[in-house]
Amino acid sequence: VIVQRLAIVGLGLIGGSFARALLKAGAVREVVGYDVDPLRVAAGLELGVITVAADTLEEAVGEADVVVLSVPVLQTRQVLTQLASSLRPDTILTDVGSTKLSVEEDVAAVFGGLPPRFVGGHPVAGVEKSGVEASFAELFQGRRCILTPHAAQDPAALATVRALWEAAGSVVCEMSAGHHDEVLAATSHLPHVLAYALVDFLNTLDSSREIFAYAAGGFRDFTRIASSSPKMWHDITRANRDAVLGALDGYLGELHKLRAAITEDDGPAILDLYTRARDARERYLELVERPAAEKRANPKT
Amino acid sequence: VIVQRLAIVGLGLIGGSFARALLKAGAVREVVGYDVDPLRVAAGLELGVITVAADTLEEAVGEADVVVLSVPVLQTRQVLTQLASSLRPDTILTDVGSTKLSVEEDVAAVFGGLPPRFVGGHPVAGVEKSGVEASFAELFQGRRCILTPHAAQDPAALATVRALWEAAGSVVCEMSAGHHDEVLAATSHLPHVLAYALVDFLNTLDSSREIFAYAAGGFRDFTRIASSSPKMWHDITRANRDAVLGALDGYLGELHKLRAAITEDDGPAILDLYTRARDARERYLELVERPAAEKRANPKT
Repeated sequence: VIVQRLAIVGLGLIGGSFARALLKAGAVREVVGYDVDPLRVAAGLELGVITVAADTLEEAVGEADVVVLSVPVLQTRQVLTQLASSLRPDTILTDVGSTKLSVEEDVAAVFGGLPPRFVGGHPVAGVEKSGVEASFAELFQGRRCILTPHAAQDPAALATVRALWEAAGSVVCEMSAGHHDEVLAATSHLPHVLAYALVDFLNTLDSSREIFAYAAGGFRDFTRIASSSPKMWHDITRANRDAVLGALDGYLGELHKLRAAITEDDGPAILDLYTRARDARERYLELVERPAAEKRANPKT
Repeated sequence: VIVQRLAIVGLGLIGGSFARALLKAGAVREVVGYDVDPLRVAAGLELGVITVAADTLEEAVGEADVVVLSVPVLQTRQVLTQLASSLRPDTILTDVGSTKLSVEEDVAAVFGGLPPRFVGGHPVAGVEKSGVEASFAELFQGRRCILTPHAAQDPAALATVRALWEAAGSVVCEMSAGHHDEVLAATSHLPHVLAYALVDFLNTLDSSREIFAYAAGGFRDFTRIASSSPKMWHDITRANRDAVLGALDGYLGELHKLRAAITEDDGPAILDLYTRARDARERYLELVERPAAEKRANPKT
C-alpha cells in the first residue's frame, strides 16, 4: 500500500481507470470519488471503480492523502478554488491534464505560487471513449506517464505520485511543464487540429456525402482522432494555445514547401520527403514499442 | 466462368489479390502473370496466385481475353507502348490505377484516342503492405471499386469488367475519370500528403527523437498512411497534381480559418468546428459500413 486514501475529483475515463488500476494493484486502501454529476459517482461506486462516494468536493478531499484532479483542463482553476480551503496542508495534489503550463498557472493563481506538494502529471494514453463506464484497470499498462516537477517541488510528493503511476503500470518520466507542452503540441494537439480541420473541410464540399462514401481504410485511421470529444479538445487547444500555434505554423511551413514541390512537379523533392517520412515513422514505431515491451519483460520494475 | 484467360501485368498486392479472388470465385479459367521482375512471376506461380507464368509482356497479353494493368501509375504509358502491338483487337484492357485522368491520357496517347474496349478502374482498398507475397483473395470483399466509363465506351467491355470485380467481392460503382480524381484527391491523396508532411516536419525538429517517443496511439493511427510506399504515392501525387493541389488549397484555407480562431481564442468557433467534424465523421462511418454490411447480408448480389 502506497497511500491509504486517495481522492479522484472528476470521474471520467482517466480518473476512473487510475482508481481501478490502483485498487487492483493494492496500491491504495480507499478511493473516494467526487464528480459534479452525482450519477457518475453512483455509477463509479456500483462498478467498483471507487470505494467511497463523496457528496461534496470538500468531503472528498478533506481526509485524502492524495488528491487527483481529473477534470477538463479549462475547469482546473474553478475546481481548485472550490477545494483549496478543504485540503489538508500535507495532502499531495496532482492532476492528469493534457496541458501542464496552464495547470501550473491555475495552481499558482489559487495557492499564491506552486506548493511543494503539487505534482503535475499527464498519463499519455488517449482513447476515443470517455466516461467512467468505459474505464478499465489496464489503460495505463506500458504507456508513458509524464510528471512535470517544478522549482519548489517536494521530492517525497514527487516520489509518491511516481510510485502510484508505476503501480498502475505506467512508464514514468519527468520533464518541465513547458517542454511537455511543446512535445505534446507536436505529437498530439497538432494532429487533432489537422484531423478536425480535414473532416470539417471535406464536409463543406458540395459532394461531401459522396466523398465520404468512397473513403477507404486509410482515411478512417487518419481521421480517427476527429471522433474525440470536441469539448475536451477545445479545452486543450485553448489551454496550450502558444505551443499549438507554434507547431501549426511549423507544419504550415512544411506543407507550403511540399506544395511548391508538387506545383513545380519536382519528383525528387516529393520522393525524398515521402521517403524521409516513411523512414522516420518506422524508427518511431520502434521507440513506442520499446517501453511496452520492456514492461512486459520486467513487470515488477 | 466470366472470361477464359486473364492477364495480370504487374504482380503486386492489387494485381495478385485480384487474380486470387477471381480464381477462387471460378470467374476465370486461367490467369497469366507478367512482371518486369521475373522473381515476382515465379513467386506468383509458386503461391498459386497465377496459373501461367509469362516470360515476356507480349506473351502475357497476346492470347488474353482481358488484360489488367496493375503497374505504378507513372509507368502506364511506357508499359502500354510496349504491349499495344501484341494486344488482340477484341481484348478488353482495364487498369487498377489510383488516378484515372492520367491513365486515360496515357491510353489515348498510345492508341490515338480511348478505345471502346478500354475500361478504367480503381479498387478502393488501400493497405500498407505491398508485394505479391502479401496478396490475398479477400482484399476487395465489401470494398468499393470505381469504374470510369468514357464517351466511346463499349458497354459489353464495361459489363465484363464490372462482373469480374463483383466476382472478386467488390461493390462496383461508376463515375467519370475527372470526378474520380477529385473525390480521391480529397479522401485519399490529400490525407497522404498531410501525413507525410507531418512526420517529416516532426522529424526535422531538434527534439524529434523525444517527440516520437511520447506519441500515443492517436498519432500512430493518424500517421499510419505515412508508412505507405513513397514511390507509389510520389507517382499518385504527380499523376493527379491538379486535383491534389485543389484539395490542398481548400484545406489550407480551412486550416487558416481555424488558426485565426485559435489565435483570437475564439472558443465558440473552435468548439463549433470540432463538433461539426466529429458529427460528420460519425455520419461517414455509417456510410462506409453500409456497403460492407449489405454485401454480407446478400453475398450473391
